[in-house]
Amino acid sequence: MSGPKLTFWFDFASTYSYLSAMRIEQLASENDVEIIWQPFLLGPIFKAQGYETSPFNLFEIKGKNMWRDLERQAEYYGLPAFTKPDPFPQNGLRAARIAAYYGRESWVPEFIKSIFFAQFTKAALISDELIVSSLNDLGQDGDALLHQAKSDQTVKDKLRQVTEEAREMDLFGAPSFVTEDGELFWGNDRLEQAIDWAKRNS
Amino acid sequence: MSGPKLTFWFDFASTYSYLSAMRIEQLASENDVEIIWQPFLLGPIFKAQGYETSPFNLFEIKGKNMWRDLERQAEYYGLPAFTKPDPFPQNGLRAARIAAYYGRESWVPEFIKSIFFAQFTKAALISDELIVSSLNDLGQDGDALLHQAKSDQTVKDKLRQVTEEAREMDLFGAPSFVTEDGELFWGNDRLEQAIDWAKRNS
Repeated sequence: MSGPKLTFWFDFASTYSYLSAMRIEQLASENDVEIIWQPFLLGPIFKAQGYETSPFNLFEIKGKNMWRDLERQAEYYGLPAFTKPDPFPQNGLRAARIAAYYGRESWVPEFIKSIFFAQFTKAALISDELIVSSLNDLGQDGDALLHQAKSDQTVKDKLRQVTEEAREMDLFGAPSFVTEDGELFWGNDRLEQAIDWAKRNS
Repeated sequence: MSGPKLTFWFDFASTYSYLSAMRIEQLASENDVEIIWQPFLLGPIFKAQGYETSPFNLFEIKGKNMWRDLERQAEYYGLPAFTKPDPFPQNGLRAARIAAYYGRESWVPEFIKSIFFAQFTKAALISDELIVSSLNDLGQDGDALLHQAKSDQTVKDKLRQVTEEAREMDLFGAPSFVTEDGELFWGNDRLEQAIDWAKRNS
């Protein structure tokens, strides 16, 4: 594929990233835009802003509205009933290491979606078991990949490096969408506009 | 008019409230929803969350993206080029007192829109002069209304009371839209869904 590219920056624990992950392929396909699935960690970025956890936890009434909004948005987009994972945010570190390191392999988007889907429609934890079974279902060697994610310094470094890139690009939340000409769109609500920008300015 | 009602909670300094103020009448009219224009003050609500000014000022990279987003959104909605007021946030206290006290009078929505429009398309300050001239243009006695806003305790109390109501309803930002059955939608991006909810659940 040689269409314009749009980078989809997401964190596995991010509720609105889930919505975008479920929607982005169809929109991209309809508009001949190529998506680069780019996991990163929001945690270090929130810490740099002075947050020790998700702002949705720190600001309780905002968080309460977010959970309600997600129920409504899931229905709006025709997704299964939204479930809230407990605890929130989930620790997506190992899944993110795998997805970041193997980023351009064809099975990666399916892996990402399966983790999001289990987390936000079945209230599943992002456990080692979930990661392994999701990978095995896609014909990958789940145990071997999980082992890499735990112990391979190159795999660990890749996620650290892209998270640092995100910080340098002034990403402050997820999902974020970045076009080839450097335009940053923040939030699932901007996905359509980001796709449109990528298409018009390529 | 006897259609379902939707309350539009806004703060005069709020950038995304401006977008909603410019859009809401057409959407409401198309869907036979009646809008209640309800100004309140975000300042006391932000203070209760520990913010001494707009979060867009406190979190610089988020603020930077917001200004860019507003430029894009203004274009997206076919509004004039967006201008950033300086300082931000503007002090909308007196305008809010007038709009809150005279809330259901027919000239109030036009007054509200004229203040928003001057602020965000001409970088105008929400000055006494702007308030008076906006009111005069609508056939009101601008000087008299401004005098009331400065000195009439009943007028002052009305805004204080609705801001307290907003806090009790767990509003945490603006714009917010509240349906008659108590559903809260936050943000200009949710205006269409709020209108739709009001229509379906009345």
